[in-house]
Amino acid sequence: MLSFDYSIPTKIFFGKGKIDVLGKEIKKYGSKVLIVYGGGSIKRNGIYDRTASILKENNIDFYELSGVEPNPRITTVKKGIDICKEKNIELVLAIGGGSTIDCAKVIAAGVNYDGDPWDIVKNPSKIEKVLPVASILTLAATGSEMDQIAVISNMDTNEKIGVGHEDMRPKFSVLDPTYTFTVPENQTAAGTADIMSHTFESYFSGVEGAYLQDGIAEAILRTCIKYGKIAMEKPNDYEARANLMWASSLAINGLLSLGKDRKWCCHPIEHELSAYYDITHGVGLAILTPNWMEYILNDDTLHKFVDYGVNVWGIDRKKDSYEIAREAIKNTRKYFDSLGIPSKLREVGIGEEKLELMANRAVRNSGGTIGSLRPIDAEDVLNILKKSY
Amino acid sequence: MLSFDYSIPTKIFFGKGKIDVLGKEIKKYGSKVLIVYGGGSIKRNGIYDRTASILKENNIDFYELSGVEPNPRITTVKKGIDICKEKNIELVLAIGGGSTIDCAKVIAAGVNYDGDPWDIVKNPSKIEKVLPVASILTLAATGSEMDQIAVISNMDTNEKIGVGHEDMRPKFSVLDPTYTFTVPENQTAAGTADIMSHTFESYFSGVEGAYLQDGIAEAILRTCIKYGKIAMEKPNDYEARANLMWASSLAINGLLSLGKDRKWCCHPIEHELSAYYDITHGVGLAILTPNWMEYILNDDTLHKFVDYGVNVWGIDRKKDSYEIAREAIKNTRKYFDSLGIPSKLREVGIGEEKLELMANRAVRNSGGTIGSLRPIDAEDVLNILKKSY
Repeated sequence: MLSFDYSIPTKIFFGKGKIDVLGKEIKKYGSKVLIVYGGGSIKRNGIYDRTASILKENNIDFYELSGVEPNPRITTVKKGIDICKEKNIELVLAIGGGSTIDCAKVIAAGVNYDGDPWDIVKNPSKIEKVLPVASILTLAATGSEMDQIAVISNMDTNEKIGVGHEDMRPKFSVLDPTYTFTVPENQTAAGTADIMSHTFESYFSGVEGAYLQDGIAEAILRTCIKYGKIAMEKPNDYEARANLMWASSLAINGLLSLGKDRKWCCHPIEHELSAYYDITHGVGLAILTPNWMEYILNDDTLHKFVDYGVNVWGIDRKKDSYEIAREAIKNTRKYFDSLGIPSKLREVGIGEEKLELMANRAVRNSGGTIGSLRPIDAEDVLNILKKSY
Repeated sequence: MLSFDYSIPTKIFFGKGKIDVLGKEIKKYGSKVLIVYGGGSIKRNGIYDRTASILKENNIDFYELSGVEPNPRITTVKKGIDICKEKNIELVLAIGGGSTIDCAKVIAAGVNYDGDPWDIVKNPSKIEKVLPVASILTLAATGSEMDQIAVISNMDTNEKIGVGHEDMRPKFSVLDPTYTFTVPENQTAAGTADIMSHTFESYFSGVEGAYLQDGIAEAILRTCIKYGKIAMEKPNDYEARANLMWASSLAINGLLSLGKDRKWCCHPIEHELSAYYDITHGVGLAILTPNWMEYILNDDTLHKFVDYGVNVWGIDRKKDSYEIAREAIKNTRKYFDSLGIPSKLREVGIGEEKLELMANRAVRNSGGTIGSLRPIDAEDVLNILKKSY
C-alpha cells in the first residue's frame, strides 16, 4: 500500500426529500446563485420548481445557465463565467448529472481567472480562487457530485480533457434516489457502466497490498451488477436507485484509489471517442472495457483477474486461474450486453479512419503509456480499438 | 436504506514518515499546543522526540499531559482542561491510541464549558465551542482518529460513557503504520477485535437494503481476519499494519452506518465490564461477541448470519442456512481464540456477583433495549453475560 493523503470534505444529504436542506446550506456561502442545468427534464419532473421555490423562500437571488451538453463544452463554461462576473454570483448550483456538475465546477474555477478558461482546463495549476460549488444529482454515473474532477470538451480542437482541483469539490450535494426514477434505460445502463469503469480504474492497479481498498472496490462492483439490472427493470425501485447513487459517489471520491496508483486507462481512450464522435461516455467505456481486459490479461496480471472473478462474480477459486479470468471477462461483457449497451464501436457511429489518430492522442498526456496494472502504449490502444471496432 | 447526512471532514495523512506534515497542519490552527499521551512508550520509540523537534522547528509552544489511562478518566480530562485554560491552548494533539485521543477530545470540548466536565460527557448538547483536536495514532483499534466519539470513565460512579459531538472529530490525524510495529501481541489482538466489533455493530442492523454498506463492512471484516493474524506473527509487516490501521478508521468514521440504524449492542455491555473491572475494551468485546451472536440467532436474524458466513468466511451458500450461521459464529469464536484472547469473563477477573447489576445498567440509557437486528433487554443481556462467564 502506498502512502496517501485523505480529504473528502463534501457533505452529502442522501435520501428522499433531502432537497429541503438547500436553503440553509446555500446561505452558508451567500445569497446569489447561478443554477446550471442541461435540458428540460428538471422542469418536467418538478426538481426545478422545487429548487426555485426553496431559493425564493430563503431570499436567495438566482440566475440560470441552461443547455449544458452531455459532453459539456468550453463555450458553455464561458457563458456561465460571464453571468457569474456580471451578477457577482457567490455559489454555483448544478442540477443534473455529471456533465452539468462538471460544467459548474469549471465555471466556478474560471470566474477568478482572467485569461481564456480553456487554459485552466489544460493547466489546473493556474486555478486560484474557486467559487463554492454545490449539486443536486439526477443521474448516478460520474461521481462528480463528490469529487474534484471535471471533464470539458473543446469541439474546435477535438479535445476532451479532465481537470482536477481540490477546491472544485462540491461543498455539498443532495442525493435523492427518487430523482433518478425517471432516468431512461439507456442512461441507467451507461451510468452503471461508468461507475464500474471508475472502480476498475482503481482496482486494476499494479500496487499490491491495498487489500481493504480492493475489498471495497469489489463491493461497489457487486452493487452495480446487482442493482444496475434491477433499476433497468424497475425504474422506481428505491433500493436499487439508492445503492447505485451511493456507489457512483464512492467509486470516484478518492476512497478506492487511496494507497494505490490510479493511472486512468479506459477513460483517456474513451475521451478520444467522445471528443471526435460525441458518444455517450458510459457506452464508450462499456465497449472498451472487456476488450481492454482481454488485452492486458497475461501471466503478470492474472492474479488480479482471479481475484476479480472470485470476489465479484463468485467463480470457484479452485478452478484453473486462466479459466477464472476468462470467465470473469466474459461475464463482464455479457453483463454490459444484458444492459442493452452496444458492444462495438461501429454500432455507435465510429469509423475506422480515426482509430490510429485517437490511439496516439489517448496516450499523449501520459508520457506515452496509460494504465497501471499493465501500462499500454499507442500501439496497444490501437489494438484494443480494433478489437472493439 | 435509510436517509443519511454524510460529513467526514477529518484529513488523514497515511504512511511512513507522514508525521512531517505536523508543523504545517498545526499552524493552520495556532501555535500553542497541548500534547496528550499515555505511558512512556512514545518516548521509547522516538515518536515523542520527533514530535517535539518538529514543533520546535515550527516555533509552536507546547505543554504536556501524560498518564492518560487505558480507560481514560474524567479526573485526567480535568487536568488537561486546566492546562488549556492556563496556557491559552489553541489545539489539543493526542499521541497514542483511542484512549488518549478520546481524552484529548473531551479536554477540547470542556475548555469552554464552565461547569463540571462530567456534565458534557453525560449530556453532549451542553458542548458549545470545541478546541481543534488532532492525533498521531499509535494503535489500530478504536477509530477515534477519525470519528466524533469519546468514551470516558468515572471511577467514583463506576460509569463509562460514550459522548459524541461533531466538532470533536479530529481536524487531522497522522496514521503511520510503522508506529504500530511495537504494539504488543495482546494489544494487537484486542485492537483487531475492537475494529471487528465496530463493524458488527453496523452490519447486524435491522435495516435492509444497505447492500453497498454491508459489502464494505464485509471487506473490513475480511481485512481484520486476514491481517490481525499476520500482525501478531510478524509485528513489522507493513502491509498488515497498514490494512489494520485504515480498517480501524473506516469501521467507525460513519461510512458503515450510513443509511442504517446503528444501535450499539455489545459496546454498551462491554462498557459496564470496563467500568466495574477496568478490563481491556477489545478483550471484553471479543468475549461477548460470539455469545451475543449465538443468543440473537433465530429465524428472523438468520439471513444476516448467512450473509456473514458466506461473504466473510467463504462458507458455501448451498449449505443449510442454520449450518452456515453456526459455522460462521464458531469461526468468529475460533478466530478470537487464535489471537490468544481469553474467552471467558472469569478469566479476566470478573465475578458473578455484579452480572445482574451490569446487565441492568447496560440498557439503562437506551430505553430498556439495545441493538438493532434483534433488540435485547436487561434479561437478555444477563443471559449473554452468563453464557460469557
